Amino acid sequence: MGDCDFGLIGLAVMGENLALNVESRGYKVAVYNRTTEKVDALIEGRAKGKNFVGCHSIEDFVKSVKRPRKLMMLVKAGPAVDAIIDQLLPLCEEGDIIIDGGNTYYVDTERRTKKVEEAGMLYVGAGVSGGEEGALKGPSLMPGGSKAAWPHIKEMFQAISAKVGPNDDIPCCEWVGPRGAGHYVKMVHNGIEYGDMQLICEAYQLLKELGGLSNDELYDVFDDWNRGELQSYLIEISRDIFSAKDDQGGDAYLVDQILDVAGAKGTGKWMSQLALDLGVPSTLVTTAVFARGLSAQKEARVRASKVLNGPSEGSNKEMSAVAQQLIGDRKQFIEAVRHALYASKIVSYAQGFVQLQAASAEHDWNLDYGQSALLWRGGCIIRAQFLDRIKEAFDAEPNLENLLLYPYFQEAIESAQEGWRAVIAAASVLGIPVPAFSTALNYYDGYRLARLPANLLQAQRDYFGAHTYKRVDKDGAFHSEWLDLRKAPKA
Amino acid sequence: MGDCDFGLIGLAVMGENLALNVESRGYKVAVYNRTTEKVDALIEGRAKGKNFVGCHSIEDFVKSVKRPRKLMMLVKAGPAVDAIIDQLLPLCEEGDIIIDGGNTYYVDTERRTKKVEEAGMLYVGAGVSGGEEGALKGPSLMPGGSKAAWPHIKEMFQAISAKVGPNDDIPCCEWVGPRGAGHYVKMVHNGIEYGDMQLICEAYQLLKELGGLSNDELYDVFDDWNRGELQSYLIEISRDIFSAKDDQGGDAYLVDQILDVAGAKGTGKWMSQLALDLGVPSTLVTTAVFARGLSAQKEARVRASKVLNGPSEGSNKEMSAVAQQLIGDRKQFIEAVRHALYASKIVSYAQGFVQLQAASAEHDWNLDYGQSALLWRGGCIIRAQFLDRIKEAFDAEPNLENLLLYPYFQEAIESAQEGWRAVIAAASVLGIPVPAFSTALNYYDGYRLARLPANLLQAQRDYFGAHTYKRVDKDGAFHSEWLDLRKAPKA
Repeated sequence: MGDCDFGLIGLAVMGENLALNVESRGYKVAVYNRTTEKVDALIEGRAKGKNFVGCHSIEDFVKSVKRPRKLMMLVKAGPAVDAIIDQLLPLCEEGDIIIDGGNTYYVDTERRTKKVEEAGMLYVGAGVSGGEEGALKGPSLMPGGSKAAWPHIKEMFQAISAKVGPNDDIPCCEWVGPRGAGHYVKMVHNGIEYGDMQLICEAYQLLKELGGLSNDELYDVFDDWNRGELQSYLIEISRDIFSAKDDQGGDAYLVDQILDVAGAKGTGKWMSQLALDLGVPSTLVTTAVFARGLSAQKEARVRASKVLNGPSEGSNKEMSAVAQQLIGDRKQFIEAVRHALYASKIVSYAQGFVQLQAASAEHDWNLDYGQSALLWRGGCIIRAQFLDRIKEAFDAEPNLENLLLYPYFQEAIESAQEGWRAVIAAASVLGIPVPAFSTALNYYDGYRLARLPANLLQAQRDYFGAHTYKRVDKDGAFHSEWLDLRKAPKA
Repeated sequence: MGDCDFGLIGLAVMGENLALNVESRGYKVAVYNRTTEKVDALIEGRAKGKNFVGCHSIEDFVKSVKRPRKLMMLVKAGPAVDAIIDQLLPLCEEGDIIIDGGNTYYVDTERRTKKVEEAGMLYVGAGVSGGEEGALKGPSLMPGGSKAAWPHIKEMFQAISAKVGPNDDIPCCEWVGPRGAGHYVKMVHNGIEYGDMQLICEAYQLLKELGGLSNDELYDVFDDWNRGELQSYLIEISRDIFSAKDDQGGDAYLVDQILDVAGAKGTGKWMSQLALDLGVPSTLVTTAVFARGLSAQKEARVRASKVLNGPSEGSNKEMSAVAQQLIGDRKQFIEAVRHALYASKIVSYAQGFVQLQAASAEHDWNLDYGQSALLWRGGCIIRAQFLDRIKEAFDAEPNLENLLLYPYFQEAIESAQEGWRAVIAAASVLGIPVPAFSTALNYYDGYRLARLPANLLQAQRDYFGAHTYKRVDKDGAFHSEWLDLRKAPKA
């Protein structure tokens, strides 16, 4: 048996960087890759002179790590993970720990945890966020799976993770929960990221199209926003983006040379589909996914833009005048957009935590919500000061049913709602799409209504399908003979 | 071999009614049900004196039908269908036709068609819409599967289906396409139904809460709407509902006694999840599904209603004043709500057909879109005059990429958009949720924009994840070193 503390399989950029990160904390690291040239390239390149062991076979790889082995895969999510597990299991010994750091669908992690545990080993599905840079310098880590693995990997995982807090000593890595819980929390992180990005895009569109702000001015606005409640990595890099000149030559700003067609890798879609399964309205992430879908229909939009007209001059005259008045006072307008962005962001996070709660209840994960917020405070893409407030909220009320009800957020939305509502009204009247701002407001206004119009919907369902309905005044399921009850229709 | 023309398995209300419908057109019908008491009850009850053969075993049932047999299941979608197919296959002979009239997920129908065809028989997955009454008097039928089955079932299926047209002789039943195509089209029908119902609920909420209309007044408004562009079954039954008095006694209107908690049976969810898989933004159905989800959180909403405040007096003063002015002119407000409903409905149907096109391309179904519109003109829940316009649109342009681009609908939206925008602006400022109206408008405004803000989103993705982006001026995938390009941040 070798003396490596840790083994890593899969030497794409993320894997290499994570291996280097682990080594840099004083651990000896074994590495393996199916294409063994990658192993040699790392050992002779970035790992030169460092505490690494390059392996050309999976047998050597397993042998070179101390028991209980910590063997982490960073490979493409899907069948490749199953294939490697099947190779590892006969080589591993009782208590060894197999870790999947990929972007895995949580259902697969549920299944694999059971399988590996049945074989006598331990399994960890760890969400890793922070991209290539995070992997190297300190990611946010969301490990879940076999709880017995945690004492063995805790020190190393916390050592390599991002740190936050006044003394930069609180690791963005804690045990999340059983089986697929870690990958689920990572998925919700990504779904919230979808929402954040779409909201920022809508703010950008409004400031640019209605406010007429230049990229320089947008830089200043985002720089300013990044010093307040909205402080976050995504606001910071958006600010930076507005300052970047075209690297293909010329004096133009790079952002204006980029095609407005958004790609996606699927985690936002997963979260939306699972929200639909759970019956919880995670409208922000779904709206963001659909907005990316619409952006991808670029050629269709260009064709449509020549046929479909927006509001005509003189329509909604008074409303348009008030909207123009809002926009005309540039400072006031920027502040209103900031409020719309902030309030919508609060709704988005509230929805994300509601989905986590529903999933935790369904799968018996017993998640700690404040801790999830803590994991996202550093290292990952949605890292933000804002998450401290969420942590505080769940520390104060571990069973808080919705973040919107926590006084801090309730007050934050109340003081933002004037601008939020004004911006959406103006955009609606002037023809600028704000799908995420709108869906956030509609969720807020629906959630705070004791009485929604679904009584009519239930009446319709009972009328045409005898689906029955509940009553406001007594328990039970009721069906009515609507044809007999209705007023005789006019001829 | 017996002399029945048709066999029906599954004698719940839908099955009984469909069997009675078939018999009423001059066919001899064999019926079977696992719980055989149901067979006896039908034969001795509603089928008494009619041309029926009740069977107590599936063997007798199969034997009693003429070849090629037409054996239709109307049972709960899921494993029960597979179980019956497994029972039927050894009893059937080459060319016999097994038909599933249930609310089946189309993927199951894709699979079953192949399985049954491999066994030498033919399979039909038929969407059936119209509820109990439709099954008895004339449903909308959407059959798909083994094309060779169609000549054998066409006459009977068209005979029992709803009829439309000036002479009431155009059947709402045509062959849809291979394998699961029929059930997919039925699913989209149901998804559009979700959208229609949610849109009607929002109109109701606005007229009631902002307009202050009584149920009597709502009756008159819906009666009026049902004579114009909005004429449809769902508007008609909504009108009726506003006239129904509580059948549990008292003088109250029944609709006000119904709890505002909407149920759902899953087809809207399926359509939403499949839209996400296809990458097409079917935002209306998804918004409607999420709205039902939020309605179901009744107790949480009641709690939230005590904590979360809407817009305060005096906020957005000028906008609120304009909104109140809109509402104050009752006739104008009702007309604006009608416009919002009509324009949103057009968007909803446009999205539904875009999804059908995407699914047809993915599965090689070669769907006929005009014909789908025709199938929905009668018998089913979304039946509406409006569908004639859709049929015309696809007859004129079979490859029409979006209904919004067809002159009739383009002009309809243009003349409706002033009211549509005003209603959403007013609702936003005054705190009434209008999620479906909003998402429809945001789709329209996004779809008609040649340039969306997704360029910033792609810049963000490339910044933090090296995901690359496309440029407006040349082909290829580009990555930039944003950290080097950005302006040095201030201290």
